[in-house]
Amino acid sequence: MSNVKVLPLLESETVAPCCPPLTERPLTAEEAERTALMFKALGDPVRLRLFSAVASHEGGEACVCDISDVGVSQPTVSHHLKKLKEAGLLSSERRGTWVYYRVEPAVLAAMGQLLTRAAAA
Amino acid sequence: MSNVKVLPLLESETVAPCCPPLTERPLTAEEAERTALMFKALGDPVRLRLFSAVASHEGGEACVCDISDVGVSQPTVSHHLKKLKEAGLLSSERRGTWVYYRVEPAVLAAMGQLLTRAAAA
Repeated sequence: MSNVKVLPLLESETVAPCCPPLTERPLTAEEAERTALMFKALGDPVRLRLFSAVASHEGGEACVCDISDVGVSQPTVSHHLKKLKEAGLLSSERRGTWVYYRVEPAVLAAMGQLLTRAAAA
Repeated sequence: MSNVKVLPLLESETVAPCCPPLTERPLTAEEAERTALMFKALGDPVRLRLFSAVASHEGGEACVCDISDVGVSQPTVSHHLKKLKEAGLLSSERRGTWVYYRVEPAVLAAMGQLLTRAAAA
């Protein structure tokens, strides 16, 4: 019996990327609420370092056990990775003792386009 | 006599974009500090709406006098625009009574690439 649980491709709690490029029109209040959550998640230096640690880790995924050099305790690392997941930027999968986190490429691509299309205009 | 002051192309107080794509390697503490400031600036719903209002305004610039529909007072609008400028996302130019804000395309493009290259990996 395997304890590996394959995640569905789209989890219902994932914050979906939204909104036109920022140059197209002012965001509505609702769009801004959703999108700000994602930027806010990356707006903390420790969280940003952890995010880049996961994104650049071998195989594009990492567990708390792989991350030890950001100068915060393991519970703090877990807390921040959970926050990044809640913001829709990471997905997670439990394998045995550890939860493995992985970057959500679609969400990041949507955030990137929001900015780069704004920059191109 | 004109009261239009042309800004230098790069202001010394501008937060310069930095860092490789997030998939390349974990950010250093210093890189994360700098970059998190920019994400944090967009991590507030009101600020994000104001930013898109400036970015999508005719001519790519706007003053407080152009923005009236985000449901906050003019002093609050001014405060948030100043924060966006401090984060390097907007530049400003005083013309007569008003300060006009404009999107910093290079900074946004750098932020976008940080994310989209991370997404592509």
